[in-house]
Amino acid sequence: MYYTIKWNGESVSMIDQRLLPMEEVYRTYTNYRDVAEAITDMVIRGAPAIGIAAGMGIALAAKKTDAKDAASFKKEMEGVFAMFGGTRPTAVNLFWTINRMRAVVERAGDIEGARAALEAEAVGILEEDIKINRQIGKNGARFLKDGDVVMTHCNAGALATGGYGTALGVIRAAVEEGKRIEVYACETRPYLQGARLTAWELLKDNIRVTLITDNMAGHFMRTGIVKKVVVGADRIAANGDTANKIGTYTHSVLAREHGIPFYVAAPISTLDPATPDGSAIPIEERGVDEVAYIAGVQVAPEGVFVKNPAFDVTPAANITAIITEKGVVENPAEKGIGGFF
Amino acid sequence: MYYTIKWNGESVSMIDQRLLPMEEVYRTYTNYRDVAEAITDMVIRGAPAIGIAAGMGIALAAKKTDAKDAASFKKEMEGVFAMFGGTRPTAVNLFWTINRMRAVVERAGDIEGARAALEAEAVGILEEDIKINRQIGKNGARFLKDGDVVMTHCNAGALATGGYGTALGVIRAAVEEGKRIEVYACETRPYLQGARLTAWELLKDNIRVTLITDNMAGHFMRTGIVKKVVVGADRIAANGDTANKIGTYTHSVLAREHGIPFYVAAPISTLDPATPDGSAIPIEERGVDEVAYIAGVQVAPEGVFVKNPAFDVTPAANITAIITEKGVVENPAEKGIGGFF
Repeated sequence: MYYTIKWNGESVSMIDQRLLPMEEVYRTYTNYRDVAEAITDMVIRGAPAIGIAAGMGIALAAKKTDAKDAASFKKEMEGVFAMFGGTRPTAVNLFWTINRMRAVVERAGDIEGARAALEAEAVGILEEDIKINRQIGKNGARFLKDGDVVMTHCNAGALATGGYGTALGVIRAAVEEGKRIEVYACETRPYLQGARLTAWELLKDNIRVTLITDNMAGHFMRTGIVKKVVVGADRIAANGDTANKIGTYTHSVLAREHGIPFYVAAPISTLDPATPDGSAIPIEERGVDEVAYIAGVQVAPEGVFVKNPAFDVTPAANITAIITEKGVVENPAEKGIGGFF
Repeated sequence: MYYTIKWNGESVSMIDQRLLPMEEVYRTYTNYRDVAEAITDMVIRGAPAIGIAAGMGIALAAKKTDAKDAASFKKEMEGVFAMFGGTRPTAVNLFWTINRMRAVVERAGDIEGARAALEAEAVGILEEDIKINRQIGKNGARFLKDGDVVMTHCNAGALATGGYGTALGVIRAAVEEGKRIEVYACETRPYLQGARLTAWELLKDNIRVTLITDNMAGHFMRTGIVKKVVVGADRIAANGDTANKIGTYTHSVLAREHGIPFYVAAPISTLDPATPDGSAIPIEERGVDEVAYIAGVQVAPEGVFVKNPAFDVTPAANITAIITEKGVVENPAEKGIGGFF
């Protein structure tokens, strides 16, 4: 069985998601800088998984520091926090993890104590995450009916988290309840997380999955095939506006047009009460080659301009319900996410 | 300067659009069966260009036949018509060409006369098409304003036609009128006609073009960048419902959601008064490898199901205007296309 990320005591290992589905290769990092680079380069991706990787990277940094006193240790750790905070700006789980790790440093008596506590915290975040996802699944499964075709975008699965997944966790929980569910996985250009990751992990679980290009979503809603949409989230603002992988907004407009329920499944750590609405969420712009090249092959002519926003914002009004481990907010446009705090 | 398709007297030459934008290779066919295969394999594509290629293929077949009498010639040509009719079922221009060529055969006195007349008809269809596109451009240019960012999908340009293009013809005509237009070209998965062809031909014309993935369309409408949408068509039913490249329907929903005008530019030969509405348009399903492989590289795991409808249907209600060489129908949902006949 595969795993997304694992703590080894003196190193962290993760499956290299850039090589899936063709190769199953694990990378092991002993240096926190390499972990930060792995996040930026998308060896690991998915908001919860990024948070876990950052936590383990920070724990590694604490192990390897040669700081001699608490003040210089703290200062060094602030530099580490800043480095991880700069890896992927949209996913708020990253900052949630950093804040937890910072609080551990504040509480710790000495460097040795801080090291042990940071390691325990990082491992705890991973273990917690899997439990959280199972609870998200339980809370969301009731929205899926036996026989449903459920569309999802990007990968909000085991590979995007410590395990089990958020959006795919809801689907897995429905399947575990005995419901027959077929998943329509949007391939999710430019990075193809749907084709490469969602299809791969659902096949491993023997959940029926059909791959479509992103631009087929409207067609399969209009023709009555797709019954529900479930996606993950990278950041949910106080008013319920949700940043998620580019293309999510388009799917939400299509779902509303066709009267199809549109669910967002995410842990509480994705909620960001400090951000009032979607317009305040920073949207990461990635390199042009992700669009102009596919799997190393150039598909666009030299000289063309390229845009590559990695995320878009779905207004709360397009979301039927936000499913978290602490419960569900139906109609978040009216209710916001305040009830969770 | 490149060309899409050319008649050489005893053969037909076309640019191999599968190799663009990286290689500019021309193929020459002396056998009509190879021309039919070139259409199926998408060496040439785009509804008007397919019609032209079929016409030239039919003219070639007439040249090479060893039929001895008019009856067997006619019978042989019916077989040729059937072969071309089976190449791409959605584009109605194909059947429009076949009907023209059949009428030429009916009118012709003898085999020699039919051969000459079919050749003249095929060459005439190409020459006509370029004139038609310039007129479509003139008729549509008034809808584009100086400074507009115009989104298009797939390739409805010079490469999809005898030259100049339909949707891109409207853009070219606006540019020729001195308007500054920037094009947002959706890459158009699975076959990437936007990335490979639209970007390529607009760069050749020094028209500013920005490439985006299909799933970014909603984001760039919501953020106010895209001001107009212009697309081509493969078949327009009597009520104005329009079949075009998969993804077009989604763009039309997004455009309406954002109050952005959505134009369809196509020659009269794309109108199909015999098809009452979009539900009666046959939608071609293509092979799964176009989705599971990109540029020869496998991107999805073995065993995943794949859907690959090549087209979808945009209801007339989502279309602001249909632009043809004979004039413009604004609000086709109310008016249909009857005015053109």
